Amino acid sequence: MRPTPSTLADYPHRRSLTTRWMDMDPYGHLNNVVHYSFFDSVVNAWLIEKGALDLERSEVIGLVVETGCHYFAPLTYPDPVIAGLRVAHLGRSSVRYEVGLFAPKSDAAAAQGHFVHVYVDRASRRPVELPGQLRDALLPLLAPTEET
Amino acid sequence: MRPTPSTLADYPHRRSLTTRWMDMDPYGHLNNVVHYSFFDSVVNAWLIEKGALDLERSEVIGLVVETGCHYFAPLTYPDPVIAGLRVAHLGRSSVRYEVGLFAPKSDAAAAQGHFVHVYVDRASRRPVELPGQLRDALLPLLAPTEET
Amino acid sequence: MRPTPSTLADYPHRRSLTTRWMDMDPYGHLNNVVHYSFFDSVVNAWLIEKGALDLERSEVIGLVVETGCHYFAPLTYPDPVIAGLRVAHLGRSSVRYEVGLFAPKSDAAAAQGHFVHVYVDRASRRPVELPGQLRDALLPLLAPTEET
Amino acid sequence: MRPTPSTLADYPHRRSLTTRWMDMDPYGHLNNVVHYSFFDSVVNAWLIEKGALDLERSEVIGLVVETGCHYFAPLTYPDPVIAGLRVAHLGRSSVRYEVGLFAPKSDAAAAQGHFVHVYVDRASRRPVELPGQLRDALLPLLAPTEET
Repeated sequence: MRPTPSTLADYPHRRSLTTRWMDMDPYGHLNNVVHYSFFDSVVNAWLIEKGALDLERSEVIGLVVETGCHYFAPLTYPDPVIAGLRVAHLGRSSVRYEVGLFAPKSDAAAAQGHFVHVYVDRASRRPVELPGQLRDALLPLLAPTEET
Repeated sequence: MRPTPSTLADYPHRRSLTTRWMDMDPYGHLNNVVHYSFFDSVVNAWLIEKGALDLERSEVIGLVVETGCHYFAPLTYPDPVIAGLRVAHLGRSSVRYEVGLFAPKSDAAAAQGHFVHVYVDRASRRPVELPGQLRDALLPLLAPTEET
Repeated sequence: MRPTPSTLADYPHRRSLTTRWMDMDPYGHLNNVVHYSFFDSVVNAWLIEKGALDLERSEVIGLVVETGCHYFAPLTYPDPVIAGLRVAHLGRSSVRYEVGLFAPKSDAAAAQGHFVHVYVDRASRRPVELPGQLRDALLPLLAPTEET
Repeated sequence: MRPTPSTLADYPHRRSLTTRWMDMDPYGHLNNVVHYSFFDSVVNAWLIEKGALDLERSEVIGLVVETGCHYFAPLTYPDPVIAGLRVAHLGRSSVRYEVGLFAPKSDAAAAQGHFVHVYVDRASRRPVELPGQLRDALLPLLAPTEET
């Protein structure tokens, strides 16, 4: 049941993220929790930069309903991490993002996981249909292997 | 496929953990990443307090190979979180922990997840059979529903 | 110039805060950054519980303009930390909080620091006079040694 | 007593650090604690990359005895932060680092602070004279205004 590490080519978008001294655990590697901070950082940065999320004004926001990660190899400070991002599923009101984390110069993911957003009305927190601007922002991230 | 929230009675061990101002995200609730910091905190605290993990001396340490979480309801600072812990599977060299996170006075988990440790030799980082002391420490955590 | 460790009696309010596995740095102790997460957690918890801060409705919020910490001894997971809180100075629109962090059963601070809030109008972010409710909430925290 | 924001030219070394979604507090800006994670990240990255700190082998490590920060302007995700680093004082066994944090394209620090390391023997944790390799690594960071 354990998945195979993905490769950089599996992700239409990549972003370099820096690690922090305090990310390290007593064993000298990045703590397993930190990986998730990369997941929502790469997702939300994409949405903000594409104009699909405005923290002050957006009436639709993404709530996280499920996350998960498999760890294959340690990541280490002070090396940066390359986060690869793809959209595995675009639903009516939800999106499944998949993220791979790579050490520098490595083409096999050190860790990979998923992150499911349900998009809700900011005030009522009830699911809404994905706004057109959000859907447009996500189309380029659809995983190359997905038949849509 | 979405699981049902578990209840406090599903967990043989519970531990109250405090939340932090900085845990909150821009939407005013605990960020999804923070949940994982509760997962490894409740697991390792148990191991350390039961004498099954000694950061300076243990020759066997747990490496995290897989984690995951489902989120049902927000958690909020400054309320504490009650973390329930059980062992869902005791393997030859791996353990699957399951953790439920509860808001105060709530019997339905606000979030629940799993955390899989593979126990390795500290120097070689190769999997080893669970030491007897570790196995003994985990027996009381076996989920009540598991037939062993 | 290095201050002397304070004692529990120096703080009118104390709060027990739990530590996390990921708080530890590669040397096996709480990373120096984590201390500051205790500072703003103990301050804001007081304000929220006393009704002086409401994240959704307050028109006056505290912006941090200065912080600092002296470290005397390591703090260690999974032990809790006792945070002592006092107000060293109540200004027209600013408050200087002082926080001591203690290991369990210790009466000498492992670390101590300060945290200066300037209270501003939430919309304009301009300093305002401390609201009466906030001032009332802080009076019990005035350091016993301060002549007011 | 409030200092003036420093400028990029005040720092011999600069490093771009990425921000994270979870760095944001409920007010939509970087939480004050996060600044300190940049401080020790820029210091230790320098030491590691210059060969003056090896987490597995170094017999001399730096313990943090004092930190402090003044905040002038908010920092915002997903923008990176430019951290400027200088050494303000090289003592017999201690070093005072000073760090400025800048928003992109800004020449006035959004925050600036200090970070004092005492270098100790890893086993005994007693202060030692700065090793030659460490001193050499720090010389290029001496603040331009310091007369040595």
